[in-house]
Amino acid sequence: MPNPTAAMLVIGDEILSGRTRDANMYHLAGKLTAAGIDLREVRVVSDDREAIIAAVKALSETVDHVFTSGGIGPTHDDITADCIAAAFGAHIDVRADARAILAAHYAKTGTEMNAARLRMARIPDGAELIDNPVSAAPGFTLGNVHVMAGVPAIFQAMVESVLAGLSGGAPLVSETLRIDRGEGDIAGPLGALAAEFPTLSMGSYPFQQPDGRFGANVVIRGTDGALVREVRARLADVFAA
Amino acid sequence: MPNPTAAMLVIGDEILSGRTRDANMYHLAGKLTAAGIDLREVRVVSDDREAIIAAVKALSETVDHVFTSGGIGPTHDDITADCIAAAFGAHIDVRADARAILAAHYAKTGTEMNAARLRMARIPDGAELIDNPVSAAPGFTLGNVHVMAGVPAIFQAMVESVLAGLSGGAPLVSETLRIDRGEGDIAGPLGALAAEFPTLSMGSYPFQQPDGRFGANVVIRGTDGALVREVRARLADVFAA
Repeated sequence: MPNPTAAMLVIGDEILSGRTRDANMYHLAGKLTAAGIDLREVRVVSDDREAIIAAVKALSETVDHVFTSGGIGPTHDDITADCIAAAFGAHIDVRADARAILAAHYAKTGTEMNAARLRMARIPDGAELIDNPVSAAPGFTLGNVHVMAGVPAIFQAMVESVLAGLSGGAPLVSETLRIDRGEGDIAGPLGALAAEFPTLSMGSYPFQQPDGRFGANVVIRGTDGALVREVRARLADVFAA
Repeated sequence: MPNPTAAMLVIGDEILSGRTRDANMYHLAGKLTAAGIDLREVRVVSDDREAIIAAVKALSETVDHVFTSGGIGPTHDDITADCIAAAFGAHIDVRADARAILAAHYAKTGTEMNAARLRMARIPDGAELIDNPVSAAPGFTLGNVHVMAGVPAIFQAMVESVLAGLSGGAPLVSETLRIDRGEGDIAGPLGALAAEFPTLSMGSYPFQQPDGRFGANVVIRGTDGALVREVRARLADVFAA
């Protein structure tokens, strides 16, 4: 059976303006690979209602799971929850269960529950809440879309919660071979192995050394660990000669 | 006149597998903002022919400029050039001008010009070459799509070449105000200012301090620098009280 598929939608002007370097994409990609879920695509869009709705619809129709990051706080630019509801045609308002979680948290911390904070209890009908152990305001899952906060510590905690409830496929085994030769020398033997072993995925990721010379990390991936290691050894033999 | 718009397409299994943390998106986003070009969307897709073609078509129809990163080297997984040609219905083969650039570079460095390296001279008909001062193999511009290498040093050099030839809009002025209060306290006054000044964009980017307390960087952006600074000062006054 093929592995489940996933996509990520990052909602954030701060990434598109170059103000912030992404951390959540890198975190989620690693966690999904370890869980045997294939991340097929990532999209980053701005805090724009039509852009968010269009991206959620497009992605949720093509993969098994969509993970979103950002835009669920109390400020005017936090419009993700309303956009997800609109994408699924679901009703959204302050929900009693989410409100109770926030009220308990603010009572404990002596924080005022104002209108802005109450916005974080806006959850679409039919959505399941995702626990936020850091600052209480929950994420939610609606259909196949998991809606999470953008603050990395909260995002990471929410990813743990969601992944605990999903069943992945066979984890991908990955072996890397560093070859201190230009990709132009590597391409021939690597292409021949890729053609011989179609069940494996082979990628070549070039780098430049401080002295200006090029090399590449060749990554061989597959669900059959013994085969992955055998092919890596064959490639290593070619370049040891 | 509104600023020109842009999108970025990152082609790379290494990002989607969590192996590599993106650097090119962060670099390009900063450069475009400084040049007055609005980056509207980023997509990351795998080394998959259909996925690349579909993304190039979708993005090139909705923005003024598309920048791609990755997949133009000599190995079997480098399929970007052929996909861009297919997206535009252009013929592609080894082109004499690109071949001459490679031949001169390899003659100088004493490197063999083999079949794999020759693949890097595959350039669609009608495309303009983008100079690669690092390792010679050129990128290219076809229609409104700028096709660049994924190795960061080469990507950055190619971005410089391309941006030198584009005219941007009015550069966006951005002022940041750090407020050591929860976003729930910031949301009310910030929302009121956002409503009062619709020509400015205001975003709130929360963070958590080491002691667990929350704060936010509020970023105010606009092309009228005096207005941006005035509004920042008004917001600062609210929280200085």
